[in-house]
Amino acid sequence: MLQQPSARLLSSLSRGSFRPFAAGLSASLRCRSQRAYSLHADASVGTSIKDIDPAKLSITKTTTPKALLPPEELIFGRNFTDHMLSLEWTASEGWLPGKITPYQNLSLDPATCVFHYAFECFEGMKAYKDKNGGIRLFRPDKNMARLNKSSARIALPTFDSDALIDLISTFVKLDERFIPDMRGYSLYLRPTMIGTQRTLGVGPPASALLYVIASPVGPYYPTGFKAVSLEATDYAVRAWPGGVGDKKLGANYAPCILPQMQAASRGFHQNLWLFGEEEYITEVGTMNLFAAIKNKETGQPELLTAPLDGTILEGVTRDSVLGLARERLEPRGWKVDERKFTMKQVSDAADEGRLMEVFGAGTAAIVSPVRRISWKGRLVECGLEDKVEAGPIALQMKEWMEAIQYGDEDHAWSYKVPA
Amino acid sequence: MLQQPSARLLSSLSRGSFRPFAAGLSASLRCRSQRAYSLHADASVGTSIKDIDPAKLSITKTTTPKALLPPEELIFGRNFTDHMLSLEWTASEGWLPGKITPYQNLSLDPATCVFHYAFECFEGMKAYKDKNGGIRLFRPDKNMARLNKSSARIALPTFDSDALIDLISTFVKLDERFIPDMRGYSLYLRPTMIGTQRTLGVGPPASALLYVIASPVGPYYPTGFKAVSLEATDYAVRAWPGGVGDKKLGANYAPCILPQMQAASRGFHQNLWLFGEEEYITEVGTMNLFAAIKNKETGQPELLTAPLDGTILEGVTRDSVLGLARERLEPRGWKVDERKFTMKQVSDAADEGRLMEVFGAGTAAIVSPVRRISWKGRLVECGLEDKVEAGPIALQMKEWMEAIQYGDEDHAWSYKVPA
Repeated sequence: MLQQPSARLLSSLSRGSFRPFAAGLSASLRCRSQRAYSLHADASVGTSIKDIDPAKLSITKTTTPKALLPPEELIFGRNFTDHMLSLEWTASEGWLPGKITPYQNLSLDPATCVFHYAFECFEGMKAYKDKNGGIRLFRPDKNMARLNKSSARIALPTFDSDALIDLISTFVKLDERFIPDMRGYSLYLRPTMIGTQRTLGVGPPASALLYVIASPVGPYYPTGFKAVSLEATDYAVRAWPGGVGDKKLGANYAPCILPQMQAASRGFHQNLWLFGEEEYITEVGTMNLFAAIKNKETGQPELLTAPLDGTILEGVTRDSVLGLARERLEPRGWKVDERKFTMKQVSDAADEGRLMEVFGAGTAAIVSPVRRISWKGRLVECGLEDKVEAGPIALQMKEWMEAIQYGDEDHAWSYKVPA
Repeated sequence: MLQQPSARLLSSLSRGSFRPFAAGLSASLRCRSQRAYSLHADASVGTSIKDIDPAKLSITKTTTPKALLPPEELIFGRNFTDHMLSLEWTASEGWLPGKITPYQNLSLDPATCVFHYAFECFEGMKAYKDKNGGIRLFRPDKNMARLNKSSARIALPTFDSDALIDLISTFVKLDERFIPDMRGYSLYLRPTMIGTQRTLGVGPPASALLYVIASPVGPYYPTGFKAVSLEATDYAVRAWPGGVGDKKLGANYAPCILPQMQAASRGFHQNLWLFGEEEYITEVGTMNLFAAIKNKETGQPELLTAPLDGTILEGVTRDSVLGLARERLEPRGWKVDERKFTMKQVSDAADEGRLMEVFGAGTAAIVSPVRRISWKGRLVECGLEDKVEAGPIALQMKEWMEAIQYGDEDHAWSYKVPA
């Protein structure tokens, strides 16, 4: 017979308690060698633990409002609005009432688990001013769902998505004056969750802090598109089947800086992550990647991106590009496909004149056209003529996405913040 | 011709600057499919940037000394000494003078990069009281070397190891009264480095904080060994070739909690990480793993542990067990080998009566005997008879290690803190 674990050995686990609270976590993925991985967290929701209640929000307004920066001085993620939204969670009580307070430092014990074991996950999303002066969020439900998946994967608490969207709406409304009223500008929102338990024991945190800060940002390409050059990375690996590369965890970012710096030291804007012997294309820097290629046999134009196999981030922009492409490009003769494709296939397509264009997709830039990729000592040209900075699909996608984000086009993806 | 990256696109990189400072980083590893990975950081050391200077240390003593806890109330990593050691670093100035101050909270902007991108790494080491009342550290040079490798891998600064050992010695001496004067007790030291730049841009941090906190701890097994049961994890992967699983990064820890909880929910103390189709044994929970097996052909006893191929932590205790085994077990007819071995080989050895014992190795417990491993629906018994809680090699290793750690035996691994 198996003994139950002794109380002492499990003390680090029981400190956090087995919360009957973690949201459904289902990461089922498949290695190229056909080994199956899956990890399921308990999907049941406890009744005795409180979820977020937007009605309990308290607001303390700043007494020293910040001056607005001129739009041209906005730098991504450097300047923040007057306030921040924060919610504390404890394993025994659940989510405590949310607070909007003046933007302020966090005061944390140096033994807090976020500093040691990377109990942290986040989201990136934006608020936009529409032509009627209203505020819009873009697919906030997708960000909330992903944040819940990320937090559950590292034993942080989950929450009711609608309740947090409610609170974020109130926060954004309060700091509305920071949303620039110009096309291409927006208010970048950064929901962040960190483990706050004060212990060096390695176990599930018994307390956490969810906070949202907001930074006004300008267009990624202020003077129009500027195509980037990539370096294919084959000497380091970002993610692995059965790992956490599909979650938006802090843990996925710090290890990516050195390859990014090395690519930059050789004159490239970003690195392109390849995977495995086959050198599958996964993602670029902190964006997903799309390639438009004419099919070798049929000549049909295909818009390709890597599938959600656990090794790439489940980008909201990626999903939106796919959705728009299926709705609007397929009727024009395109095939839209999430499938594994290799660097060699892209290189061959370039050699044979079939590579139409390549672009990254992410919240910051929407789309980021790629001019060339350095791979195995050669430069693979990605279909852009000299002095042309973006292909037609990238241009079209940006136009379609912005029309929805800024509310020019009525669309289910655009969430109107109640006035 | 390749263009240089535009200033705007590289702004997140140039913020941190390409410091000519990162220590030599060389992680050359080999995947089972024979694909080679390596990542080399610049090993040159800048002359204009200051390294740690122990002579510049300032000390501010607490005015409210804490009461000492009774030894039996000590819980790992929960209670800390009166003071902490901290050093700030900036990309422009290098290491600023170290400070010993009263133990206190860190005050950090919510946009600080440690909260978002897991710019954090740490060490675990211990200070011991010897029979003459002196203080000893165990192989602190190994911890410093590993911290430098960890920090360089995530674009955090490196430092002079001897200088930090100097400062840690002063710190430990100041808080000497917290080191329990009893066998099995020690002062656990936690050097930690975090990125402190206040920006959401993903790039190398332009500022960092290195701090050391100390927690008095009791023996891992206060009433003698208690063998643990493990669950082999094949549904999730901790580390992979070309990744960062061999570095002591926060990023490697949060993703391990859920498998640990799942193992515990089925009655096991820890999970055992397998890798690949072959189900190689890598490490257990937060420890390295050793197996003592009689060779199938020759009958020779072999002490096996996984090799440093990039997928396991380079444990100081692991290295020490290997060193002692080579010095003291090989003359007794043992073979000591760092090589890949599979769960099936361990299971076969158990079936054939060749599995002598299995134990984990780490700073917290030194050695942690394993009674059984759950794998593919069966329980693999690891050579311990009923009511026996540790095998002879585990017992011997603990004895040898403690004799060195507590200074009973003069050994180069024991570092005497100057009185």
